[in-house]
Amino acid sequence: MNIHTTVKSDIEIAQESVVKPIVEIAAKVGLTEEDLELYGKNKAKLTYETMETLATKPDGKVVLVTAINPTPAGEGKSTVAVGLADAFNQIGVKAMAALREPSLGPTMGIKGGATGGGYAQVLPMEEINLHFTGDIHAITTANNALAAFLDNHLHQGNELNIDPRRIVWKRALDLNDRALRQVIVGLGGPMQGVPREDGFDITVASEIMAVLCLADSLADLKSRLARMIVAYNYDKQPVTCGDLGVEGALTLLLKDALKPNLVQTIEHTPVLVHGGPFANIAHGCNSMVATKTARKLADYVVTEAGFGADLGAEKFLNIKARMAQIDPDAVVIVATIRALKMHGGQSKADLKQENVEALRKGLKNLKKHIETVQAFGLPAVVGINRFVTDTKAEIELLEQWCQQEGVEVSLTEVWEKGGKGGVDLAQKVVQTINQSPSRFKSLYELSQSLEEKMNVIVQQVYGGKGVEFSAKALKQLKEFDQHGWSDLPVCMAKTQYSLSDDQAKIGRPQDFTIHIRELIPKIGAGFIVALTGDVMTMPGLPKKPAACAMDVDDQGRAKGLF
Amino acid sequence: MNIHTTVKSDIEIAQESVVKPIVEIAAKVGLTEEDLELYGKNKAKLTYETMETLATKPDGKVVLVTAINPTPAGEGKSTVAVGLADAFNQIGVKAMAALREPSLGPTMGIKGGATGGGYAQVLPMEEINLHFTGDIHAITTANNALAAFLDNHLHQGNELNIDPRRIVWKRALDLNDRALRQVIVGLGGPMQGVPREDGFDITVASEIMAVLCLADSLADLKSRLARMIVAYNYDKQPVTCGDLGVEGALTLLLKDALKPNLVQTIEHTPVLVHGGPFANIAHGCNSMVATKTARKLADYVVTEAGFGADLGAEKFLNIKARMAQIDPDAVVIVATIRALKMHGGQSKADLKQENVEALRKGLKNLKKHIETVQAFGLPAVVGINRFVTDTKAEIELLEQWCQQEGVEVSLTEVWEKGGKGGVDLAQKVVQTINQSPSRFKSLYELSQSLEEKMNVIVQQVYGGKGVEFSAKALKQLKEFDQHGWSDLPVCMAKTQYSLSDDQAKIGRPQDFTIHIRELIPKIGAGFIVALTGDVMTMPGLPKKPAACAMDVDDQGRAKGLF
Repeated sequence: MNIHTTVKSDIEIAQESVVKPIVEIAAKVGLTEEDLELYGKNKAKLTYETMETLATKPDGKVVLVTAINPTPAGEGKSTVAVGLADAFNQIGVKAMAALREPSLGPTMGIKGGATGGGYAQVLPMEEINLHFTGDIHAITTANNALAAFLDNHLHQGNELNIDPRRIVWKRALDLNDRALRQVIVGLGGPMQGVPREDGFDITVASEIMAVLCLADSLADLKSRLARMIVAYNYDKQPVTCGDLGVEGALTLLLKDALKPNLVQTIEHTPVLVHGGPFANIAHGCNSMVATKTARKLADYVVTEAGFGADLGAEKFLNIKARMAQIDPDAVVIVATIRALKMHGGQSKADLKQENVEALRKGLKNLKKHIETVQAFGLPAVVGINRFVTDTKAEIELLEQWCQQEGVEVSLTEVWEKGGKGGVDLAQKVVQTINQSPSRFKSLYELSQSLEEKMNVIVQQVYGGKGVEFSAKALKQLKEFDQHGWSDLPVCMAKTQYSLSDDQAKIGRPQDFTIHIRELIPKIGAGFIVALTGDVMTMPGLPKKPAACAMDVDDQGRAKGLF
Repeated sequence: MNIHTTVKSDIEIAQESVVKPIVEIAAKVGLTEEDLELYGKNKAKLTYETMETLATKPDGKVVLVTAINPTPAGEGKSTVAVGLADAFNQIGVKAMAALREPSLGPTMGIKGGATGGGYAQVLPMEEINLHFTGDIHAITTANNALAAFLDNHLHQGNELNIDPRRIVWKRALDLNDRALRQVIVGLGGPMQGVPREDGFDITVASEIMAVLCLADSLADLKSRLARMIVAYNYDKQPVTCGDLGVEGALTLLLKDALKPNLVQTIEHTPVLVHGGPFANIAHGCNSMVATKTARKLADYVVTEAGFGADLGAEKFLNIKARMAQIDPDAVVIVATIRALKMHGGQSKADLKQENVEALRKGLKNLKKHIETVQAFGLPAVVGINRFVTDTKAEIELLEQWCQQEGVEVSLTEVWEKGGKGGVDLAQKVVQTINQSPSRFKSLYELSQSLEEKMNVIVQQVYGGKGVEFSAKALKQLKEFDQHGWSDLPVCMAKTQYSLSDDQAKIGRPQDFTIHIRELIPKIGAGFIVALTGDVMTMPGLPKKPAACAMDVDDQGRAKGLF
């Protein structure tokens, strides 16, 4: 939650807002009721026919919203993305947003909701934060059906010669549940399957989520699902979902989940909320289908990528943009003065106090992300999510600094004022795009080796010296080359809190090396995950989960989401 | 699948059928678009406001469809229920059906679908058999959220003093997955929770499914959820969901799942498909909310209960009818000549051959169920689901026998002909209701002891001598009395294949005793489960799951459901 002058909670603002029939929202971008599959009055999926029809239309511009490295102070990247889309419409630019779906696990655990904040929210807030249109449930089901087919294969004679010690496909639930991280399944004797070690990830960390977000048709979805590696056999060769013969059933389970979901902001800007892969183990962007569809419907599309520019934006630009052939036009880097002060060493408890020196130091983190965006050939605009505690001196320093750096900066107040609070940012983005056309290029070529790709990311995005590999990872590099996987992009799994792989190193660490512990081939998604340090793929709950405050009244109105 | 003259599969017939907009179907029973929350064009939920408005309207009649003990020959109870509702409309009686939602587990495993068959199907068949409106996913989520909250409580200090060896709340997935029947969770050291034994049920066996199906409002749902027992503490006292303080969050997760789903038959008869608890560990009927709502909308409501009359109908009549104050008017007992011949000793391989003697012997099973229905003070009509292999001599014997027994019988051909094939059955049901008004009464009073209730069921429904208890069950009877649970109804968990607790004893076994192994208090659902023998609450997959034949074309059209 943001700390602003207003005292209303997000859910209060959301419930006081008017949600227009989604048919009216669709009409704004030229869609009729025939193009929609309604989920209640305020949510709809677009049909495959509609997306086919749209394919020939020209593409709108794409503005990627990213951020500095996150701190406990909070940055409000989704809030700025939503407010920016509203602001574009305020200045007469026909805009949409294409955003990620929230995961129920964090909602029930600590976040209480993830659809923007204040007057820059996506509606219907409760439904998007709960079951929405069932996409994530479909992914959970497909993920666990595949696990059940795999264990059944072991139990029924194991024709594929799968080594139960080398099963890599985990089960999944869209919940925070630490007790399921490491489990043993198949106990109880010969009638209950084959005992083995297993574990559950949160659904948004499932490869199927990444696959759904990178597939551009049902046919592509099916072939990606077929390629997913589920295990290795006793000859250490990969066994895939396709080897089990169930990619058709999984595609069937996902046939509606692949259609993007249309909703609206508080200001009735159309938004596609679709797909939400983790930004550590996966690429952290909303679905390719949604982003591409939004470009056909609007002149400007605002989209976002998870965590800071070193994680989400790097993956958006090197992975998603390349696969989807989406060349973005500009990048907004969101920061707060509070968070920059934390990067400069101020403690969370002291954030309300003016500290120009800490801010000055913390700007180094922002500077690195600006450089990164520029390295991709893209113009950057800094969007400051303004808080009441920001002092005049701090704001002045920030503005001066941006001027010196030659980068546009805008103080936004979208949390309090909605689109109006982002008009200046919107104008600066349009101006920047008009003045500095994108010369977007990926930072590496797919033909480079996996090691070269990782070195490029570490040097040009993180600002480090390069990568070093564990013995295991070195061995894997050779094996992957033999499997023909070396021409895939790399999806780095790294802490979001630091540019380095040590989360304590805030600000702009120097002279560090990134240690690659292990590689994970995600052949369905189409990338190689490089693990640096421990990666959390199943969060836990806090002592008092947010769920304890949740309730519903007799008419079905939600309480306790925030 | 039925063996009839037509060679089309259920999904072919379903896909060739015209599905009318659900708004048109709703109009047939006086509902407007305002009463509906659309899920696509062909499915809708009814709003809470609508159900409140309907509450003052008079109640339609209720016809319960049940069956003989199931055999591998198949009976087609859902098919007859759907066809009967269509047939009522054919003869000018305004009718609806209120049926259970299919579970994905059996669909992906062996059944391939469960929405009736042939020309007596509910549409849209694919969607109902896949994710439908997400009710079962919501239950899965609520079930597993509760498990996560429980394990988190253990991990965060265990203030409630829960004994990890006495946790009774299991996790759930709506899949057939034998490897999850017995698992160990919480492995990996102190950061990953508390290691303990656990297991997964199929979602339809979750107490939350039973709770949803017996709750009559959101407030009732919440108080039932709060009463569910999740564990026992070190003092062996029950710990409930309410003790964990999460009944509000669970109700929030279920706020839409409690609303009944409106769909249609191939002949456009309105159907509420809502809720689907297992008929062994739970009561096996669709939701109370749906049955009560259907009575407000139609003059005749056809509903069904799982397995044979000894399981589903007994529980419908002694549990659901009592809680919901639904007095049924007549019971249709579905049988096939094939299945009756199996009860008379004919092997499955020989079913195509005429065998009047086997049929005569097998009629004993039907006779017991007729007696049971009559014991409840209800008129019974026998509905024969006709197959092409039924011979003239067999049909004549059956008809003569029913005449001697003084019970109406009708040969239905709803699979091939839809409602037309059930007109005779519909007429006989109407006639029977007019001539033999229901004198419905439960077989036991809630004030009787649990032991007395079980003896009543065994003697009057199963035709056995009575119950005997294990030492454990005897001890539990005393404990339950101390907890004040003795005035709850009993939900018998018994094999569906035999009137006894030995599945090999087909036909009409005599002089048997039912051995009660253990009692399980389901205080949220509001009944005591009595386990006889092993009860399967998580099915397994066959060697070649039905899923292997499933697929979807580029337009999202399903293949391989049948």
